Amino acid sequence: MNGKRPLILVTNDDGYTAAGICALMRTAQLYGDVVVVAPDGPRSGAACSITTQVPVYVRPVCEEPGLTVFACTGRPADCVKLALECCVSRRPDLLLSGINHGSNASVNIHYSGTMGAVLEGCMKGIPSVGFSLDTVNHAPDFAPLERAVKKVIGYVLAEGLPQDVCLNVNFPERDVIRGLRVVRMGRGAWGNEWQSADHPRGGTYYWLTGSYTDLEPEAQDTDIRAMADGYGAVTPVRVDMTAHEALRAFKGMEDV
Amino acid sequence: MNGKRPLILVTNDDGYTAAGICALMRTAQLYGDVVVVAPDGPRSGAACSITTQVPVYVRPVCEEPGLTVFACTGRPADCVKLALECCVSRRPDLLLSGINHGSNASVNIHYSGTMGAVLEGCMKGIPSVGFSLDTVNHAPDFAPLERAVKKVIGYVLAEGLPQDVCLNVNFPERDVIRGLRVVRMGRGAWGNEWQSADHPRGGTYYWLTGSYTDLEPEAQDTDIRAMADGYGAVTPVRVDMTAHEALRAFKGMEDV
Repeated sequence: MNGKRPLILVTNDDGYTAAGICALMRTAQLYGDVVVVAPDGPRSGAACSITTQVPVYVRPVCEEPGLTVFACTGRPADCVKLALECCVSRRPDLLLSGINHGSNASVNIHYSGTMGAVLEGCMKGIPSVGFSLDTVNHAPDFAPLERAVKKVIGYVLAEGLPQDVCLNVNFPERDVIRGLRVVRMGRGAWGNEWQSADHPRGGTYYWLTGSYTDLEPEAQDTDIRAMADGYGAVTPVRVDMTAHEALRAFKGMEDV
Repeated sequence: MNGKRPLILVTNDDGYTAAGICALMRTAQLYGDVVVVAPDGPRSGAACSITTQVPVYVRPVCEEPGLTVFACTGRPADCVKLALECCVSRRPDLLLSGINHGSNASVNIHYSGTMGAVLEGCMKGIPSVGFSLDTVNHAPDFAPLERAVKKVIGYVLAEGLPQDVCLNVNFPERDVIRGLRVVRMGRGAWGNEWQSADHPRGGTYYWLTGSYTDLEPEAQDTDIRAMADGYGAVTPVRVDMTAHEALRAFKGMEDV
């Protein structure tokens, strides 16, 4: 870091005006200079999607000592890509995404724009962490998370992260967070996902909704369990999606 | 399957009129009744994103014996979700996605709408396979892939797939595909990703582009290598993104 303060890139999928990213950028400023490059509006459910059909725009919306904020018309992963090539003057030491308004534990990671940005940062070789709060409250209180968020940031700035591994950190909505638990991603499933309605000019439209089922409610070592017990759930996540343990079983396919 | 022909759900991210999905649905019809639920236009780079801000519509566009085609305004993962609840009369025995116009090997899986649909099917417990052709040709020839695609379909219908594991199958553009290789996802990185231009009414816009670098060109067991050698690369992919091998290393964070 050449004696400079760390440079911390902050993004999210709820847009740059969301309460969660405001909380995160203020905490990040305790640790370094902060550049925010975040969507100009909600991008929930964006996963690691990228913008291929239309051009992307980015504009500065705030500049103060140690903090610059850019709003971007793209998805969270676009924001990270654009930040690195067009918005920062040196390589960030850390990428933080969130704090998401809603859980990204269990299978939700696959839909998460918050974690899409984190995966993008990780693929670029930057230590990258996503934070999410399991809430349906429109004005959630992020203050109870601050101590645990600081612990994670301090740890990652000091220790770094392994190659191609990033962190998915999920919090329950509690007055007091009991601490952190390092846990695996729990198995879960969404169902009953569509709510239909009649369009006033005819036809049917569908809203994506659904209910989540924990497929291993007895397990003690999952993110879902840690959150239920009042802890922040820290899950190390791999860029490599290969099911290595299954490679051998499929070898027979080569001889078909 | 109760003596019935298998029911095969087909989708993609290039839209229901793409040449690749037409090739795949015709091959699929050799093995069962086919229901196509695919986007009504291109959704390249959609990853496993879902539609949360606007409603989704679906309409039948073709019906013939053993084949029904629906066009959907959503993303590939939406198509799978909507298909299962609203478009099929029984649970599909197999989900096929593609054939994508472009490679989804290596890190491209994270951006891939083709594989987003496959992950969605896998999370719903359906044996799910994505097919992609590494091409930049606007009218590629999918015929050389047919024999290998049949091998994969036959194998998966006969053997099934392990719980929470799906397949990512990528082909090189060759007159002859030499066979199949079961391989891991190679490490790679995108860079130089933005091309800027001046808007005629002022300001700058950015197109996402970029160049891919193979980060382990010497490796013999990657999807990139198998394709370079003229084979279809079959990579088993996990829904569980936990870096299990890193869980222990992070335990120290619990005591911070």
